[in-house]
Amino acid sequence: MLPDRVLEILNEMKAERIRGATWLARKGAEAFLALAEELDEALLEDAIRELRSRIIEVNPSMASLYNLARFMPITNNRELVKMRALEFLRRMDEAKRELASIGAQLIDDGDVIITHSFSSSVLEIFKVAKDRRKSFKVIITESSPDYEGLHLANELENLGIEFEVITDSQMGLFCRKATISMVGADMVTRDGFVVNKAGTYLLALACHESDVPFYVAAETYKFHPTVKSNEVVLHERDFSRSGFRVRNVLFDLTPWKFIRGIITELGIVIPPRDIQ
Amino acid sequence: MLPDRVLEILNEMKAERIRGATWLARKGAEAFLALAEELDEALLEDAIRELRSRIIEVNPSMASLYNLARFMPITNNRELVKMRALEFLRRMDEAKRELASIGAQLIDDGDVIITHSFSSSVLEIFKVAKDRRKSFKVIITESSPDYEGLHLANELENLGIEFEVITDSQMGLFCRKATISMVGADMVTRDGFVVNKAGTYLLALACHESDVPFYVAAETYKFHPTVKSNEVVLHERDFSRSGFRVRNVLFDLTPWKFIRGIITELGIVIPPRDIQ
Repeated sequence: MLPDRVLEILNEMKAERIRGATWLARKGAEAFLALAEELDEALLEDAIRELRSRIIEVNPSMASLYNLARFMPITNNRELVKMRALEFLRRMDEAKRELASIGAQLIDDGDVIITHSFSSSVLEIFKVAKDRRKSFKVIITESSPDYEGLHLANELENLGIEFEVITDSQMGLFCRKATISMVGADMVTRDGFVVNKAGTYLLALACHESDVPFYVAAETYKFHPTVKSNEVVLHERDFSRSGFRVRNVLFDLTPWKFIRGIITELGIVIPPRDIQ
Repeated sequence: MLPDRVLEILNEMKAERIRGATWLARKGAEAFLALAEELDEALLEDAIRELRSRIIEVNPSMASLYNLARFMPITNNRELVKMRALEFLRRMDEAKRELASIGAQLIDDGDVIITHSFSSSVLEIFKVAKDRRKSFKVIITESSPDYEGLHLANELENLGIEFEVITDSQMGLFCRKATISMVGADMVTRDGFVVNKAGTYLLALACHESDVPFYVAAETYKFHPTVKSNEVVLHERDFSRSGFRVRNVLFDLTPWKFIRGIITELGIVIPPRDIQ
């Protein structure tokens, strides 16, 4: 039986439907830390085995949770568990910093970057590019119905980065004004599909049609080593407007053939030949 | 100088930014009727010449207005002007009926039809198909920021036609569940581009990618005989959300290569070889 504090974190993770891969992995690492702190060492090994399963069950197609679970050692050594959980968190931060540094190299003076919804990785890239005194502009989709795009608009306003907000339906019109596109990812499947906020696929199609290079920012812990695109479970959340139920599947899948490259902390990954 | 009642109608037409080609043409015909009723016959010929220009200036790339203006005779004969204006209105109604009858033939039992925003022509097709006891389902985009999709949802609910509403970003996800797609049009350019509510182009791309036949419903008075796609002026209307200005270009252009056919009152027009 897992301690209450760990169960609480698990419930919080299960209830969360907007925040993505990074937030979930961070919470998951906290759950392992809490477990190591609260449980008798004699019981730890079995509890870790259980927590590894429970963490994956929160969302079986979420690579960050799968990779976190596999990263955690099955041991009765409390200090070792804490050390590994903290190491995972540290690696996440390092990966984001490296990714941002690499991604910012793609941004040239005068670029117009179109993005969809909110991605903390893409925001980091913009921050680094701004620090390097690049002059660029961002086109942001509002991302109905939760309007995460306005959250990004707010961040860019505070950073003094020029931006313009559009409705989601105008992606096709405005990608023609863009020189490059960058979006985040919740997960990359084994067969090279990117799972990200619904609408990402439409932006990829429109960019492809208008010859705008389409990049995805994803740390390698978001790559799933086994799950394929047809096994991905796409979460849906209840939503209604003016009394009508409105379907609200949160994510969609973008095949690798529409992606110029995936920006990771190790460099930019380009599609393998057998997927193209 | 045009009579006040005619100027009022012109102003109403200029101020209107949501309702499309059919509404504008109807209003335009009313303006000619008002002119014929209010003006001295001796002044009529010059006034008609002026109104023809002013009607086109309301939106120079709106084919329905251009075709209406060209349909009206330059004459001092009051009765002739009224007769022609009424004939244009009658032809509009007839065209919609014929179009609906032809379009409904495309709908088979069990079809799932995905559409974008609201089109009175597409609604007529659904009505006729329902009258013919076809059993089908409609997927409707909400169409942010004015949510015309919910207007269609309301109509279908009253008609007892099964439907599902989605956010605009989910077009790519839900077109895979559709067997056919039908949208309206504000105008068809001389070089075969369809001007319709922004987002239509994205739906066409997604349908193309998923092999879902994409049809446009447009009476022939919406075909512009001279204006080409690069001459189309796309209207924008002010919009903001949570204090941020949100761009709101109302229409986009879909090239004919993504369109299986245009449903008109004369039959289904398919792309000519030199455009494909």
